[in-house]
Formats: sequence, C-alpha cells, structure tokens
Amino acid sequence: MRNLAIDAERLWGEIMETAAIGGTAKGGICRLTLTDLDRQVRDWFKARAEQLGCTMTVDDMGAMFARRAGTADVPPIAIGSHLDTQPTGGKFDGVLGVLSALEALRTLVEAGYETYAPIEVVNWTNEEGSRFAPAMVASGVFSKALAKDFAQSQKDRDGVTFAEALDAIGYRGAESCGEHALSAFFELHIEQGPLLEAEGKDIGIVTGVQAMRWYEVILAGQDAHTGATPMHLRKNALVGAARMIEAVDRIGQKYAPGVATVGLIENRPNSRNVVPGDVFFTVDLRHPDDDAVQEMQEEFYDHLQIISDDLGLDCEGKTIWEQPVVRFDPDCVAAVRSAAELSGYSAREIVSGAGHDAAYVSRVAPSAMIFVPCRDGISHNEAEFSSKEQCAKGAQVLLQAVLDYDRKLAERSLKTG
Amino acid sequence: MRNLAIDAERLWGEIMETAAIGGTAKGGICRLTLTDLDRQVRDWFKARAEQLGCTMTVDDMGAMFARRAGTADVPPIAIGSHLDTQPTGGKFDGVLGVLSALEALRTLVEAGYETYAPIEVVNWTNEEGSRFAPAMVASGVFSKALAKDFAQSQKDRDGVTFAEALDAIGYRGAESCGEHALSAFFELHIEQGPLLEAEGKDIGIVTGVQAMRWYEVILAGQDAHTGATPMHLRKNALVGAARMIEAVDRIGQKYAPGVATVGLIENRPNSRNVVPGDVFFTVDLRHPDDDAVQEMQEEFYDHLQIISDDLGLDCEGKTIWEQPVVRFDPDCVAAVRSAAELSGYSAREIVSGAGHDAAYVSRVAPSAMIFVPCRDGISHNEAEFSSKEQCAKGAQVLLQAVLDYDRKLAERSLKTG
Repeated sequence: MRNLAIDAERLWGEIMETAAIGGTAKGGICRLTLTDLDRQVRDWFKARAEQLGCTMTVDDMGAMFARRAGTADVPPIAIGSHLDTQPTGGKFDGVLGVLSALEALRTLVEAGYETYAPIEVVNWTNEEGSRFAPAMVASGVFSKALAKDFAQSQKDRDGVTFAEALDAIGYRGAESCGEHALSAFFELHIEQGPLLEAEGKDIGIVTGVQAMRWYEVILAGQDAHTGATPMHLRKNALVGAARMIEAVDRIGQKYAPGVATVGLIENRPNSRNVVPGDVFFTVDLRHPDDDAVQEMQEEFYDHLQIISDDLGLDCEGKTIWEQPVVRFDPDCVAAVRSAAELSGYSAREIVSGAGHDAAYVSRVAPSAMIFVPCRDGISHNEAEFSSKEQCAKGAQVLLQAVLDYDRKLAERSLKTG
Repeated sequence: MRNLAIDAERLWGEIMETAAIGGTAKGGICRLTLTDLDRQVRDWFKARAEQLGCTMTVDDMGAMFARRAGTADVPPIAIGSHLDTQPTGGKFDGVLGVLSALEALRTLVEAGYETYAPIEVVNWTNEEGSRFAPAMVASGVFSKALAKDFAQSQKDRDGVTFAEALDAIGYRGAESCGEHALSAFFELHIEQGPLLEAEGKDIGIVTGVQAMRWYEVILAGQDAHTGATPMHLRKNALVGAARMIEAVDRIGQKYAPGVATVGLIENRPNSRNVVPGDVFFTVDLRHPDDDAVQEMQEEFYDHLQIISDDLGLDCEGKTIWEQPVVRFDPDCVAAVRSAAELSGYSAREIVSGAGHDAAYVSRVAPSAMIFVPCRDGISHNEAEFSSKEQCAKGAQVLLQAVLDYDRKLAERSLKTG
C-alpha cells in the first residue's frame, strides 16, 4: 500500500464552500432535508463526483452513491455520511463524512490507485430527522429497519410528505432503496461529545452505538385563570411536565454513562395568565447496555404515572422509536485502529452516544466509524467546530482504513478463489 | 325609584349574537384586540348604542363611550367592560359586562327613565393582554397608571404596534385617553373562579382586587447533543425552568390564598435530540395582601438564583408589571350590596383574583364590581359558561346599583347645591 495522503487544504476549502449553501449569520448551516438548499448541495456533490469520473446512482429514498470502479466485480466499499443539517446546525455534522469521503476518493483518482473493490461515496437522506421524523431514515430503509411506505409518508409541519418533498427536488431515483449490496461501510463523523478533546486524542475508534429510545408524552389537566383559581383546585399540566423533566434528568444521572433528556416541549395555551391545561413533550433515553435502557424506560413510565396521579392529570406516553445497542464489525473496527496507528495519530476506543447512519447500515454490511474531536463537545449548534487539522486527520484515517479493508478483501478472495 | 327590570332573553340573545364574531368550533371566541374581528364587534356595539340614541366617543386608545344624557351636566356614571377575548376565550369574559351595560341602558331608554347623571356604556381596549402586553392597557392609560407612549408602542408577535393596529381598524379616536371624567364606574364580570358556585351564591359583591405582579425570566445554558453529552457536563436550561415551575407552584401553595403560576414557556432550540440551551418563561404572582406578594417575590428570586447557580445557568429575571391591592369605593360597593338585597339575590363579598379594568379605573373614579358565578370556575377557556339566569341576575344588579348610586349623586347635589 502506497502512502497516499489526503489534501487538508482542499478538504477544508470544500467544507467552507458548501457551508455557504444554507449558511447562517452565526456561522452555522440551516439545510433541512429535501429543501431547495438540500437540492443545491446534492447538485454540487453530483457535479464534483462526476468530475472525478464517478457514476452516480440515486435510490428511491434519495440516497446518493458516487461510484468509482474497482478491479473486481464485487460490492463496493461505501464511505460517507449525510449533507442535511439541523435547523441551527453546524458546518461539520454529517458534512465532514461526505466531503472527507469525496477527498479520499479524489486522492485515489489523482494517484491512479486502483482498488480491488469499487469505492462509493454515499450521501444518506434525512439523517437529522428535524423536518421528517424519525432520523436516519434512508439508511433505516436501506437496512430494512424501517418500512419504505412508512418513511415516505411521514409529513413535515406543513403537511408535505417525504415522498412529495423528494419529487419536488428531483431526487427520487429509480433504484429501490436497499437493493444495493455493500462490502463494507465506513463513516467519519465529529464526536459531538467532549471525550476526545478532554483526553487530547486525535481519533475515536468507534466500537458501537448505544441503545436509544424516543418517547412522546401528553399531559392533560385543565386550563384555568391564574388569578381566580386557588392552588388546591388546579390541574396544572405544566407542573406535571416540570416534575417529569426533573425525573428524566435524575434517571440519566442514576444510570450514567446513560443519558436522559426532555428536548422538546409545547405548552398550551401558553399564555401568561392561564394555568396550562395541556403539555406535549419528548423524551430521549440512551445507554450502552440494552438491559439498562429498559430499566430507564420502566422508571420513566413509573414516574409518569405517579406524577400524573398526584396532580390529577391524564397522561399518555408512547415509544416512537427505538434502536438496540449496535456493535460494529470487528474487521472494520480493526481497519480503523490500524489506520490510526499507521498515520501516527493518538486514538481511543469510544461508544457513540449519537445515532448515525452507520448504526443502521451495520445491520446489512460490515461497518465502523471514525470520530474526530469537536470543540467543547458542542454539536447541533451553529458554534460547532473542528479544526482543519482535526478534519484532515479524520479524512486520512478514513482513506487508510478503506485501503486496509480493501487489501484484506482482495487477500480473502485470493484464499477462497 | 321604579322597579325597572332588564330583559333576560334579549341580553342572552345578544351574547349569542356577538359570540359569532370570532366564534370557535369548540363554542368559544377568538377575538384578539384590534383585529378585524374586534372591529366587527365594535361596529356592532356602535350601531346598537346609536339606535338607542346614544352619542359615541372614542378616545386615542380606542376606548369607546356610548353616552345617554342625564338631567344634570355632571360627569357620567360609566358601566361596561371589554369585548376582546383570549385566543381560546369564552363567550362571557368581558362581553357580559359590556352587553349587560347595554341592556341596562336600553331598559332605561325604553322605560323613559331619566337619570340625574349621564350614563355611559364603556368598551375598554385590550383588556386581555394576549396580543399586546400588558393587559388592561386602555383603562391603565385612562387612569394614568400606564404611559400612553409605552402602551401605543407595544408590538405583537408580528411586529405590529398597538398604534398601527388601532389605525388599521379605524378606532383611534380624537379624544385624549384619560380626559374623560367619570362620576363612578361599575363593572359586571363572571367570577372566573369557583367560589360563588361552590357556595350557591347569585352575586359577588367585589370589595377589591388582589395585588398582582408579572415577571419574565430567561435561563441560559448550553445547547448540546442529547446522545453524546454526559449528564455531568450539561447546562440544561429546561431542567432549570422545570425546577422554577415547581418552586413557583410551591410558593403559591405556601402563601394561600395567594396564587403563583408559570403560564408561558418557550424552549430553545426545542428539538428532540438537543439539550435545551435557552428557556424563556413568565411568572404571575398574586395575593390579597401587598406585604405577602412582596414576600412571594423575594422567595421567587431566591429560588431563581439558587437553581441557576446549582445548574451553572445564567439567569435574568425582571418585573414587567405590578399592581398593588385595590380596595373599591365604599359607596359604590354599598350600591352593589343594596342592589343585590333589593333584587332578592343571595350574595357574598369577594376579592377578585383576576385583574379588571375597574381596578385601574378605581384610581381616578369611585368604582366597584359585580361578579356572577361561572361553571366550575372555568374561564380563559372555550368551555367558559354562565347560565342565562346567572347573567340576567348580574345585569339586574348592575342596573339597580347604577340607579342607587345615581339617586345618591342627586341627593348629594341637593345638599351641597
């Protein structure tokens, strides 16, 4: 294997160039999935890939695969992430994974390096789940974890379905999502947490993803006048929600390294002088152990019942999404570890706290992930930042891991061939 | 004094007729101040008053005064309330006071009864404070409690000022608000609380209004990814708000019959998988004793500081409105008491928990209020309800109280004249 090196400046330049598509005043990106801004960045990606001689395939969930042929007719090694962002997202979440993959592929093209397996750069549709729930929907359908009909019929707040939005930007492809075999999948991503930075590590060798469950809760009491309704006659849904927010926070602390969060709340009628009658909120529970997340769920439901009963509220709670613990493929993880060692970068193993497309893809293809640090662990925020050097190290490890895995694929074929 | 009687059917008919202007599917009214719906009900009121031979004056805060002359050239006895509603308001809050006043005036006209003082039916602008804060803004300016420039420059959520909205519906009158002397003011209103119904009383003789204070609070922490941010590294502003919501609720319970409420909360960025970084919420504290409400305020601020420090949040709290305890004029209250006795209705004295235009007007003219029961004490809600009989009894007491007070004005003038 030759010592190929990605171009740090070129990668950084493309991160900054595409950041202008949906760029915000505070230096972040607002590029919600399947909007016209998403179309613009997809068009940009397609043009760059085609300049490199790649063939672009789009499936009927809008996932994009830019393929460079290998010497063998085997399923490709895929690399990539997503180009959509949160409403107040940063420049790196997802974007780094796709653009580093493009840079790695460009490095191969320029060096004239021929891989055994084809290499594909992937852009997964709607990783963020901000406009259409749930998150990671294209990789979810790709891996058969989610039904295509369900995913395509989800609506945004304006009542537009995923399928309609896909057609509107012209990115519903002919290939049926999931009928695209992969030899492996590698995803580079910012950590979105504080651990690598705190320990001064360049690279996170991601061994898996913690279990995650999402819930929606409605508490119903009685709207009433704040001035004329004595405290003992109230059914204040917001007080119930407040107790639940605290209970969820305590569950997270009790089950550390698990985490538990209420991220979204809608209070009705939300008027200064009306005792709140209805509250909707969401709960996010995660833990690196499946049994532990189940215990967290049971405590959450226990609290919900006790608090509702205590305040005379009606309650309704339901699971809207769950994903068990993911353990990445040992060979893929080994390829990442070797790549970090070969490059001379400091590294540690890490379990991802966030969900990623690779977690779904790992159900149908050997997969692993590479993390790089981000400043203060901040993500899903316009202030999200990783340095040019941090990004470049991640891209270099991605390239080396692909070459390492490709070489092993070729060797295996010789043994079995 | 002749035994004049209001017409219960006619009053009820007009309550139902005007309820169609902004009527909601659930049987309530959404008629925000200074909207086109508000213009429609104002036009209706003006037309009815003019049919009765009244002269309509509108001041530059949009307050409407429909005047029937008396035998003497003295300031009028005013009766009325407001025709604007909450976003999910009922059919009675405010409306009953204006339409009962119109019915009382119509009864005088039809009987040919000549009062000593002129009688005026008043519609105060923006009592509710839902579209433009603060509440009771026209009566506040009328009584010099609020500055006119401040009131007129308040903006709604779309950035439209009060003054612009007033011009848009054509209800900025020539008279300067507050240059309108009154001999007295009587306001009939639904109780908006459960006490009269619980005790089976027809009439509440309102002796005053409890002290009220409104606050706005901002808590600032740090947005972060829910999955990748360990519990101990979070600065979760929503957990801070939750603790404050509970603390405020406990303050209300501790200081009963005082009340304390968080009615409005805005969580940012309000996304399922983002630890909330910023929360804005409002606090409403009330007590029938000025010293007690001051103690409640001190406890509230103490909790705000302790909770913010504990969670590493920045906090900012400020008073945006305060009104001390109001004690109504003894002669006006006596007139209401006599009227209830004369009519043979059961009655009790009561302190208003809600703010009302009469609380402000009492600063510049002798004032009192009359309450009637409402079902389950529910108000600021589309389910708000008082029966035809309850409304009629209130209107009858309003008429009798005005006649009683008018007779005393005439007697006083004879003594001093």
